Amino acid sequence: MTTQEQNRRIVLASRPVGAPTEDDFRLEAVSKPSPKEGEVLLHTEYLSLDPYMRGRMSDAKSYADPVEVNDVMVGGTVARVVESNLADFEVGEWVLSFSGWQDYAISNGEGLLKLGKNPENPSYALGVMGMPGFTAYMGLLDIGQPKAGETVVVAAATGAVGSMVGQIAKIKGCKVVGIAGGEEKCRYAKDVLGFDECIDHRADDLNEQLASACDQGIDVYFENVGGKVFDAVMPLLNTGARVPLCGLISQYNNTGLPEGPDRMSLLMGQLLIKRIKMQGFIIFDDYAHRYNEFAEDMTQWLQAGKIQYREHLVKGLENAPQAFMGLLEGKNFGKLVVKTQ
Amino acid sequence: MTTQEQNRRIVLASRPVGAPTEDDFRLEAVSKPSPKEGEVLLHTEYLSLDPYMRGRMSDAKSYADPVEVNDVMVGGTVARVVESNLADFEVGEWVLSFSGWQDYAISNGEGLLKLGKNPENPSYALGVMGMPGFTAYMGLLDIGQPKAGETVVVAAATGAVGSMVGQIAKIKGCKVVGIAGGEEKCRYAKDVLGFDECIDHRADDLNEQLASACDQGIDVYFENVGGKVFDAVMPLLNTGARVPLCGLISQYNNTGLPEGPDRMSLLMGQLLIKRIKMQGFIIFDDYAHRYNEFAEDMTQWLQAGKIQYREHLVKGLENAPQAFMGLLEGKNFGKLVVKTQ
Repeated sequence: MTTQEQNRRIVLASRPVGAPTEDDFRLEAVSKPSPKEGEVLLHTEYLSLDPYMRGRMSDAKSYADPVEVNDVMVGGTVARVVESNLADFEVGEWVLSFSGWQDYAISNGEGLLKLGKNPENPSYALGVMGMPGFTAYMGLLDIGQPKAGETVVVAAATGAVGSMVGQIAKIKGCKVVGIAGGEEKCRYAKDVLGFDECIDHRADDLNEQLASACDQGIDVYFENVGGKVFDAVMPLLNTGARVPLCGLISQYNNTGLPEGPDRMSLLMGQLLIKRIKMQGFIIFDDYAHRYNEFAEDMTQWLQAGKIQYREHLVKGLENAPQAFMGLLEGKNFGKLVVKTQ
Repeated sequence: MTTQEQNRRIVLASRPVGAPTEDDFRLEAVSKPSPKEGEVLLHTEYLSLDPYMRGRMSDAKSYADPVEVNDVMVGGTVARVVESNLADFEVGEWVLSFSGWQDYAISNGEGLLKLGKNPENPSYALGVMGMPGFTAYMGLLDIGQPKAGETVVVAAATGAVGSMVGQIAKIKGCKVVGIAGGEEKCRYAKDVLGFDECIDHRADDLNEQLASACDQGIDVYFENVGGKVFDAVMPLLNTGARVPLCGLISQYNNTGLPEGPDRMSLLMGQLLIKRIKMQGFIIFDDYAHRYNEFAEDMTQWLQAGKIQYREHLVKGLENAPQAFMGLLEGKNFGKLVVKTQ
């Protein structure tokens, strides 16, 4: 493995107003840190870029503390141990860590998940086998409770979470309708991921196309985008529908609420008369104790060729801000991962 | 029992726009019907008046078909068998039926629940032992999942459902904060029902008073009113809160959506970041199979003096429209029941 003497890191330069810009990030180079007794030095190989990071850039109250201005951006990483003063960890080992947007990080071992000395697909720990896959699995199965023959709708259908939601729903015998940005993604969702239908959210007649694809209504809507997609979904929800809610990416750059009328009571009225369950969840807060169940199923599905997984790999830590801004606009195609070097 | 030759009935004269008025109802007298072979003639003793009836007066899509104009208003009733051509039913028996707003009704026995020949409190079948009590029980316990020490908030705190929600939550060891209209109801909620706090929703500083009463936030909000009460509740909901949703009485007379901004995405954002479950339910559609479980617990609690129950009795079928209009304005104090004669 290559090492260098400097630690490049990307810090939050300022809190974005609306969509983040290059100016909200700053690339710095500082000295490579040294591990003390009981610590390891980790070198980041892969950095995961995920929509939730937009929330951490803001100081609005949320489920996790914001990143402070001038602090390193947070994020899940796959790293290798390059120095070890910790009995359990050997130099060269791969780990899943939460080192953030930087080349090097110190750890006392807490929270590290060992990935072995020679993992076949180390970056999978950031996607299909990690947080996004786990989110899809628990949200769909535990909150969504899909039954064979039911209709499941998921947006960001080729994204890290959406692609897994749809494929797991197919394994469970559901009809799956995806929503994605552009023809190429829609073709991929149908031809490669095996969705029954996939609709381009840019289409002027999104509502009509979705209604036509969901001719039996919608039993499970896995919500990760919000906005106009939810507007199209809401009237199609069936009695007894379930709406696991793991993200609202279309809303993250909003600086205020949309104009009226105020549809909050309309949404509650729909939940009432259709006996709908809508439930937000934060995967590791709610389901950490069920990770093994997920890992066993997903490993088996991958080995059996039942799950397709696509990464969108960006090279160079310095390109993380641009890639992240693109993620919020749906420019990625597959799970967005940065290969730091 | 008294019988008469005419059947008085109240029909829907017109669909209300906003709050119903006297003109939306019409009292008619028609001939008393005669039961055929395999039928019984029921005489309505008690008619239940409940908020859901407002929905049936409207032709907006809902979970149940609307009452047609010129049809008898629907409603749960406690009745006696006055003629019987059905082997299972004897003259003089009491039953729980769904005869609607009228003196007499024909039944083939389907859907009738026998209450015996001499029930102690026959009208209880419309309240504490019936739909409202069952709604409170399942919504709170199955969807709300309250744990001892948690804070439960319920509005319409002295109403048929709210009063049961709060008392069951107390039995389960929760802190209970009610919201009700006026000092007298608030005093009753605390002194008789045993709530820890009860706040007058007419107070100018409702939000501040609720925040102060719920100093540990809100873990379960049993939603039956919506509107400004929910606005006060939303910021206080704790991470992991549960919101069973059985009614939105404050909204039923609205003719359109409130002015903006559009807070639908705000609500969804709150559900997401706080991992909240909000779930609508319609008691007999969702939980009919668990009625016995409720009936056993409630009977035991009543016998042990753990549940207080208050009826607001109105005499005379002809007074049902006025009483129902008052119900939508919170004028009743306790479960609203009409003694038909």
